[in-house]
Amino acid sequence: MIEDQLRELKRGIVDIVSEEELIAKLKQGRPLRVKVGFDPTAPDIHLGHTVVLQKMRQFQEAGHEVICLIGDFTGMIGDPSGRSSTRPPLTRAEVLENAKTYQEQVKKILDPSKTIMACNSEWMDNMVVSDFIKLTSIQTVARMLERDDFKKRFQQQHPISIHEFLYPFVQGYDSVALKADVELGGTDQIFNLLMGRDVQKAFGQEQQVVMTLPLLEGTDGVQKMSKSYNNYIGVDDSPSDMFGKIMSISDTLMWKYYELLSSRTLGEIQELKDRVSTGSQHPMEAKMGLAHEIVERYHGRTEADLARESFVKVFKERSLPEDMPDIALELERPWIGSVLKEAGLVGSTSEAKRLVAQGAVSIGDEKVTDSDLVLTKGTFVIKVGKRRFARVTIA
Amino acid sequence: MIEDQLRELKRGIVDIVSEEELIAKLKQGRPLRVKVGFDPTAPDIHLGHTVVLQKMRQFQEAGHEVICLIGDFTGMIGDPSGRSSTRPPLTRAEVLENAKTYQEQVKKILDPSKTIMACNSEWMDNMVVSDFIKLTSIQTVARMLERDDFKKRFQQQHPISIHEFLYPFVQGYDSVALKADVELGGTDQIFNLLMGRDVQKAFGQEQQVVMTLPLLEGTDGVQKMSKSYNNYIGVDDSPSDMFGKIMSISDTLMWKYYELLSSRTLGEIQELKDRVSTGSQHPMEAKMGLAHEIVERYHGRTEADLARESFVKVFKERSLPEDMPDIALELERPWIGSVLKEAGLVGSTSEAKRLVAQGAVSIGDEKVTDSDLVLTKGTFVIKVGKRRFARVTIA
Repeated sequence: MIEDQLRELKRGIVDIVSEEELIAKLKQGRPLRVKVGFDPTAPDIHLGHTVVLQKMRQFQEAGHEVICLIGDFTGMIGDPSGRSSTRPPLTRAEVLENAKTYQEQVKKILDPSKTIMACNSEWMDNMVVSDFIKLTSIQTVARMLERDDFKKRFQQQHPISIHEFLYPFVQGYDSVALKADVELGGTDQIFNLLMGRDVQKAFGQEQQVVMTLPLLEGTDGVQKMSKSYNNYIGVDDSPSDMFGKIMSISDTLMWKYYELLSSRTLGEIQELKDRVSTGSQHPMEAKMGLAHEIVERYHGRTEADLARESFVKVFKERSLPEDMPDIALELERPWIGSVLKEAGLVGSTSEAKRLVAQGAVSIGDEKVTDSDLVLTKGTFVIKVGKRRFARVTIA
Repeated sequence: MIEDQLRELKRGIVDIVSEEELIAKLKQGRPLRVKVGFDPTAPDIHLGHTVVLQKMRQFQEAGHEVICLIGDFTGMIGDPSGRSSTRPPLTRAEVLENAKTYQEQVKKILDPSKTIMACNSEWMDNMVVSDFIKLTSIQTVARMLERDDFKKRFQQQHPISIHEFLYPFVQGYDSVALKADVELGGTDQIFNLLMGRDVQKAFGQEQQVVMTLPLLEGTDGVQKMSKSYNNYIGVDDSPSDMFGKIMSISDTLMWKYYELLSSRTLGEIQELKDRVSTGSQHPMEAKMGLAHEIVERYHGRTEADLARESFVKVFKERSLPEDMPDIALELERPWIGSVLKEAGLVGSTSEAKRLVAQGAVSIGDEKVTDSDLVLTKGTFVIKVGKRRFARVTIA
């Protein structure tokens, strides 16, 4: 029982500190309190942000409590040194608005009735400076400078403002205030997550288990998903954009997306993988399954179906030969027989009729069944048999 | 006028940031607000601590306001990392008691009616954490690590707790709260004093002028005065101890003590120096003048006079030849004539009588004037003329 749970909870995880502690907590048989911090400055959410939500969902399905912590206290401070333009201080109104955006997104993956939303201003606004100073005494300067980003900046003599050293303590204290059993975050957050353990220890609390999730690669499969790399899939992208972007990822990355984003169980995913590797399912079908699941999550079933159809249609059109002739026709009455003959796709209108009757003629993805069909004005890809194509424009 | 003032204000100063700014402030013609911070953990005051009080007195005499700032906010936090045993956290009661001790000492040098006593808990207790975090953004980690003590510890991989980085900001903000024009401190405080300038600038205030005073060497003339080096002169030392310790310093160090501790003007000190260098005054007399002034400051005129007399007496005894003969006498009636004869200091009792009459005989520091004197039992240093001595014990 715990083993099955553990397998799903560990799915996709990079670091876990420590597995023994997690097992011990699971054995206590109570719902664990699973904390995830959200930065209230970036409500423009892409799929990379949802990896952690997926993990929260797995905890929720296993009966645990998940807590979305909005770092509004820190958000309202921003970067007072003005060194980072990406952290402008937010007003309370902005924070509340952004929190609502998160809540909307969260609802699409998590069960809202089992999700606690919290803001760290609740306790940080009431903390006195002397307690905060005491809090910072548990860590040393040398240890802070071991954090990857600080280390690099320090070595390169790029300025690190003192207040940047203080935010990890706020995040750590949040775990105390929330009595967190588990904290999830990206691999880039490992230092701050471990700080939570240190602070809890100093406050005599059981230490939280820290689990990190990988940073999701963007559609290029190389860089992490980010608006600035233009490789991101936004949760607000239109159904067809979202479907198309997911279809554009490599077959290799597809399996990582399945692991980190899909709500299918590991078992289901393994079955799919097996079918693909034995050739009984085309990888593109597997990818469409993923794209459909994700689009359905954000836009509903109907939109997902439409996006799939539209993708298939466009895909098939695009798989026509590149050197297809472009033919412009001026016909008073663009009957299918005349069109095929004038376009040079058949030798005579009677051949045309016969081929339509055989089901060998199609316009776009649609088979032509009526040999009396009269076309309207426009551009059509007309296919006769397997090898004859033309893009016909009727003026 | 400003030039005279400036000369006395700069007396003994090591660093001044900057003299131009000080002159500009003096030219404003208003009383300047001169801040000095006191650590409420160490009420065991020695003369080294009073160097800065002496400087405050000079400002006070020039018509400026002096502010003794008790760092009680920081004192009540102490060193929560427990790394420094010298900084146990204080209770409010202890802080108030220590503040009273400072007030007592301060009264001996400063005009209490023109001295403002303040505690930084007045404003720090009301500061919210977010404002404090913003405050820390004005300085970088690299800059903090330039501070001598931090630099050394960092290089030697000795731990520096984060909270130690935060105290300088408190000290800096104190200058904002007090609208300080000048801050005085030891040379070891230069970093924290300059931080006050940075913080004031960030708050749009005119920056304080920073002036540092040397650390006073202890009686050994080598190490700075400190209880741990056992070279200190406590302000609570008995009058004779204090007098004796000051008399024990070198002639060179004496002039530094004059500069830093005496209330005599630079002109008066120069005159004294001239007299000593031309031989018209013995350096020991000059040193006794210093010792008398300091003892008078802490114990009053009468005690200072007594301490000087006692010192002179002991000094003279001690300046007798080391190889003085020890003579034990058993006399039924220890008449001075017999004593001198039996001790071999005179050839006959009539010679003894004659020498007493000439004033050539003394016991201890007292000249013998009565040739009929009968001594009691005890040990006496008896001197005849300039060269004949004996330590005579009458049983």
